[in-house]
Amino acid sequence: MKVGILNVTGYAGSELARILANHPEAELVSVTGRSEAGKRLFEVFPHLHATDLPIVEDIEESVDIVFSALPHKASAEACGPFYKRGVKVVDISADFRLKSVPEYEEWYGVQHPFPELMEDAVYGLTELHRAEVAASGLVANPGCYPTGAILALAPAVKAGIIDPDVIVDGKSGVSGAGRGLGMTTHYSEVNESVRAYSMDGHRHLPEISQELGLVAGQEARVTFMPHLIPMTRGILSSCYASLKPGALPSGQAGIAALREVYNDFYRDEGFVKVVAQPPHTKHTLGNNDCVIYPTIDLRTDRLTVVSAIDNLVKGAAGQAVQNMNVMFGLPEATGLQALALYP
Amino acid sequence: MKVGILNVTGYAGSELARILANHPEAELVSVTGRSEAGKRLFEVFPHLHATDLPIVEDIEESVDIVFSALPHKASAEACGPFYKRGVKVVDISADFRLKSVPEYEEWYGVQHPFPELMEDAVYGLTELHRAEVAASGLVANPGCYPTGAILALAPAVKAGIIDPDVIVDGKSGVSGAGRGLGMTTHYSEVNESVRAYSMDGHRHLPEISQELGLVAGQEARVTFMPHLIPMTRGILSSCYASLKPGALPSGQAGIAALREVYNDFYRDEGFVKVVAQPPHTKHTLGNNDCVIYPTIDLRTDRLTVVSAIDNLVKGAAGQAVQNMNVMFGLPEATGLQALALYP
Amino acid sequence: MKVGILNVTGYAGSELARILANHPEAELVSVTGRSEAGKRLFEVFPHLHATDLPIVEDIEESVDIVFSALPHKASAEACGPFYKRGVKVVDISADFRLKSVPEYEEWYGVQHPFPELMEDAVYGLTELHRAEVAASGLVANPGCYPTGAILALAPAVKAGIIDPDVIVDGKSGVSGAGRGLGMTTHYSEVNESVRAYSMDGHRHLPEISQELGLVAGQEARVTFMPHLIPMTRGILSSCYASLKPGALPSGQAGIAALREVYNDFYRDEGFVKVVAQPPHTKHTLGNNDCVIYPTIDLRTDRLTVVSAIDNLVKGAAGQAVQNMNVMFGLPEATGLQALALYP
Amino acid sequence: MKVGILNVTGYAGSELARILANHPEAELVSVTGRSEAGKRLFEVFPHLHATDLPIVEDIEESVDIVFSALPHKASAEACGPFYKRGVKVVDISADFRLKSVPEYEEWYGVQHPFPELMEDAVYGLTELHRAEVAASGLVANPGCYPTGAILALAPAVKAGIIDPDVIVDGKSGVSGAGRGLGMTTHYSEVNESVRAYSMDGHRHLPEISQELGLVAGQEARVTFMPHLIPMTRGILSSCYASLKPGALPSGQAGIAALREVYNDFYRDEGFVKVVAQPPHTKHTLGNNDCVIYPTIDLRTDRLTVVSAIDNLVKGAAGQAVQNMNVMFGLPEATGLQALALYP
Repeated sequence: MKVGILNVTGYAGSELARILANHPEAELVSVTGRSEAGKRLFEVFPHLHATDLPIVEDIEESVDIVFSALPHKASAEACGPFYKRGVKVVDISADFRLKSVPEYEEWYGVQHPFPELMEDAVYGLTELHRAEVAASGLVANPGCYPTGAILALAPAVKAGIIDPDVIVDGKSGVSGAGRGLGMTTHYSEVNESVRAYSMDGHRHLPEISQELGLVAGQEARVTFMPHLIPMTRGILSSCYASLKPGALPSGQAGIAALREVYNDFYRDEGFVKVVAQPPHTKHTLGNNDCVIYPTIDLRTDRLTVVSAIDNLVKGAAGQAVQNMNVMFGLPEATGLQALALYP
Repeated sequence: MKVGILNVTGYAGSELARILANHPEAELVSVTGRSEAGKRLFEVFPHLHATDLPIVEDIEESVDIVFSALPHKASAEACGPFYKRGVKVVDISADFRLKSVPEYEEWYGVQHPFPELMEDAVYGLTELHRAEVAASGLVANPGCYPTGAILALAPAVKAGIIDPDVIVDGKSGVSGAGRGLGMTTHYSEVNESVRAYSMDGHRHLPEISQELGLVAGQEARVTFMPHLIPMTRGILSSCYASLKPGALPSGQAGIAALREVYNDFYRDEGFVKVVAQPPHTKHTLGNNDCVIYPTIDLRTDRLTVVSAIDNLVKGAAGQAVQNMNVMFGLPEATGLQALALYP
Repeated sequence: MKVGILNVTGYAGSELARILANHPEAELVSVTGRSEAGKRLFEVFPHLHATDLPIVEDIEESVDIVFSALPHKASAEACGPFYKRGVKVVDISADFRLKSVPEYEEWYGVQHPFPELMEDAVYGLTELHRAEVAASGLVANPGCYPTGAILALAPAVKAGIIDPDVIVDGKSGVSGAGRGLGMTTHYSEVNESVRAYSMDGHRHLPEISQELGLVAGQEARVTFMPHLIPMTRGILSSCYASLKPGALPSGQAGIAALREVYNDFYRDEGFVKVVAQPPHTKHTLGNNDCVIYPTIDLRTDRLTVVSAIDNLVKGAAGQAVQNMNVMFGLPEATGLQALALYP
Repeated sequence: MKVGILNVTGYAGSELARILANHPEAELVSVTGRSEAGKRLFEVFPHLHATDLPIVEDIEESVDIVFSALPHKASAEACGPFYKRGVKVVDISADFRLKSVPEYEEWYGVQHPFPELMEDAVYGLTELHRAEVAASGLVANPGCYPTGAILALAPAVKAGIIDPDVIVDGKSGVSGAGRGLGMTTHYSEVNESVRAYSMDGHRHLPEISQELGLVAGQEARVTFMPHLIPMTRGILSSCYASLKPGALPSGQAGIAALREVYNDFYRDEGFVKVVAQPPHTKHTLGNNDCVIYPTIDLRTDRLTVVSAIDNLVKGAAGQAVQNMNVMFGLPEATGLQALALYP
């Protein structure tokens, strides 16, 4: 497969290039990035020294699939024409994630350039929508927070042991804020500090609500509070919900039954691990795993689930490649077998 | 005042020594620490070069007040005799925090050496129990997590806008795990990683329940999940609770009313700041403040409150000195006026 | 004393405001900062909540001393008029540090706006130039790297045990790069990484050469290589020089003699500590100390000296206040007694 | 090839397991680790979930090669018998690195258990000793600091443009101190701090001297000062030496000639990159590269070279696998193609 990346110069884009460099079936043939156009890829990213591609303004080569890591709106504008002429598209931006055009336009404050394509698009949380992804030419790669939160909660919602009325306390490394400059990425401001942000509504909220609602078959009610953590990569999602009375046995038997629900849900999944101890985000550093620990606060009968991902891999570029593999009928783990870098 | 510190060699103890070194009314006259007994204080802690005290095994000098930073049980054993002979005691350990002896013994797995003193002891969250602290000779200094969580939620509970049925997602720097050695304090294990721990019940939970229950006049129901953050100091407490229907006006007016509740509650407090933006823990680095941001998730009518403290100052040594000031009738901020170190 | 700060909105400026807030003899009456003019100081810096000053464009109030934390050239332009009308000036920028106007213009690439004032200015490394500072109305506060490097090497140069032919390997926290935005301060770029920079010549080099040359009475030959360390504050200067043959006894006796040289040199200094173990920069976090460990590599007869400072305190704002104290005849440590924040 | 690892439970051992898990020609069949014997590998290291091996006390299986990550002395004791019965050995400990038995015994303070094997052993800095490694059954894998320092200086020494009289200022991440517990790996002690250590002589010094001496054909004179940096992985080696007068053209032409020396020396090397900007250690995070930037301080005619490696990969486990590949006649990069994880 010949692959192009739109906007390789951010962290999602460069992470795509890194993963694709060792993908046995994909050949990266073109990368764009207006601010750095004219340079070679390795001049901007020395760690990509094996990839001697120029950064160009637009993809001119013939490609089988395009990944877009452009900002929202610009991404849809660039992806639409590729999709229309039959090139497969995985859009890492938010442009095709929400099913509702008005909801998109309200949250993102822009007019959607291709609203007619939104129903063609598949929400590419692979574990939930694998068959649709396989059949689709336009995959909306999920946001980083939603990936961790939805995978943490879907089994419980699906099993009906909770209502889709949940609290998600998200904790993200700083790379989630991108490669752009600002006080939220300034080392001396974020180091040795933790804080909540977007407490009046983060753009990843409607994705979480949409997908949990779909799983539940009813509208979801989600409180989502993101936090910035002084580390580069990783998202930990701490999720809380009241158990439906009687849905599970009481005491330790309930915890065992809960684990069974999760184990069943993810039995055939290669990238989701249900574990017996709270995961460290470090267990996912650089790999495509989502590691989940579900349990019950027995004093209050609340479900508490913690999930860990690498926000740039399973939360962005890795899941994008996972979706590409599904779209092209490849084994899903192709090019994604790296183990976490520890310590 | 002549002051002694029991177990100066941990982080709470050395922080007490640091604060007391610049306290105009207190004179540190004796410090203990069995593992380092025989050394001078500055040999173990070069930053305390101004304090040329030897570390001894037991306090032999006459003192007006003793701070204990010993581990639980050992602390009560050491503090009891001081208190009984009229020396004022601020115990930073957990030994006198809980009102219920059986609850203490269940959570801490030891027999209390002085159960008869537990009713003499005052829970030293100064803002809630100032008058009792002033009248007491035995103050149980609150845990670090409870300090942040209770201050964040007490105004809402007191005002009756929520039931004492809450979720506290705590995020602590690594110094909260102490100066002892273990994989939870090993740099390479905790750096660049975040994780939850003690999900089946942390020892700070019963303190939070006890105090919120006292404020509410009814039993509290608390889910508390602590997290380890790759930073040295600071605790952010993210708190969630359902608003009682009709307790506040809807929409932005509700948020304004909520802020009024908090402003009223803390109007006369020198160390609690109610702010208009989510605080960074860095805003409290090295000072005795608790900075609180209360708001409402208008989509779900949930109260969301975030508070920030320095776990070693307001969460330990600073609050201990604040309590000492109250016990001796000094202006409460004496020796505690340092501003946060930024950045 | 009434004090003004020019450009309070960077790290040196805000650190000055923090230190002055607790200075018993100084009253901060005016702060400037064009980008944030119109806001209150605590709106930009929540940790300065005790200081309810507006940020203005220009100092209009009558002041006894002005600190300038403006960028070079702009600083001289602003300081010149104050000095000329008799207001004392401590300039934290580089504008008045070099004795040679051509050297300044070569290194900084600008024309000096007040070359005629350069000979009035005193290089404010207090320990070396105390008497001149006391007599001066225009003090050039040293750069952060030079402060650590010169204090580390001056005793050996003065004693004639080395020639002024030295290597300084500097290691600085990120706050040294300022509050401005750029890839060198982007969290995800500098976290978990270390690198050298300015290997073809850093602007702090001529300061080090000038001052060591003055101490030696001959031209100095200095290789200075700065490095960026993933921490917020602190500079460690690792210094290397060949001992003059026979200048010291051989073996351990030489090390003892060397320590005597350093102890003698700094015997009466309150802020310089000669210690018996390599210092951690953390030992100076938030205080005005310079901690120095001199020793000899006995295998090669090289002097090796390590010094630690907080780049924003002894390396900038703290030394500026120290100089102010000297200029006004106050005890030198006034307002500067804070102990290091540990851990 | 069937592979065993002695002492998999430290960082070098677990990193070997991680690399070998994706090595196409090697099969890990046995791992030892006394403190954790009886557990499965993934129970101790969740990131190694793909490797379902038990941790045993001793290697019982038939193996073609053994890697030892045991402490010194214990390592030689364990490796000796394997080597004697024809199993190839790569020893990551220091036991076979030094050619001189007395020097080993002086630096390590123990008697060597197999002194007769020291002349069989090859110092496995692959780039310098490839042919010997290929012919050997006993490879002493270099220390982490020596790997970076020797690769940085060997071309200049070989070319005769400097004498082997050098200063190496080493800066290492904390993982270099291992997985053991101590104050030097305690998060709150090392975070936000930098310091020098072992200033009276670090055990890696004689390795550097030995190898630079071999390259030069004369005894080397080395000052080596290691520093602990608050990051997990990475070593930056900043090297200083006086250029021999006339050895290179003056000015920029000299720098160009110097780069030519380095480019020539490493022209055919896959893992050594000579670059045109000072490298960040982050450029080597998780990969087997050594990235080198040589230049000249034109003001003092000193050679200044900076090299970056990942201390656990090129500085330990990666180079060990590189040596294994050479010993078995495999392409040298087999299993080592991972790109650096950025950011």
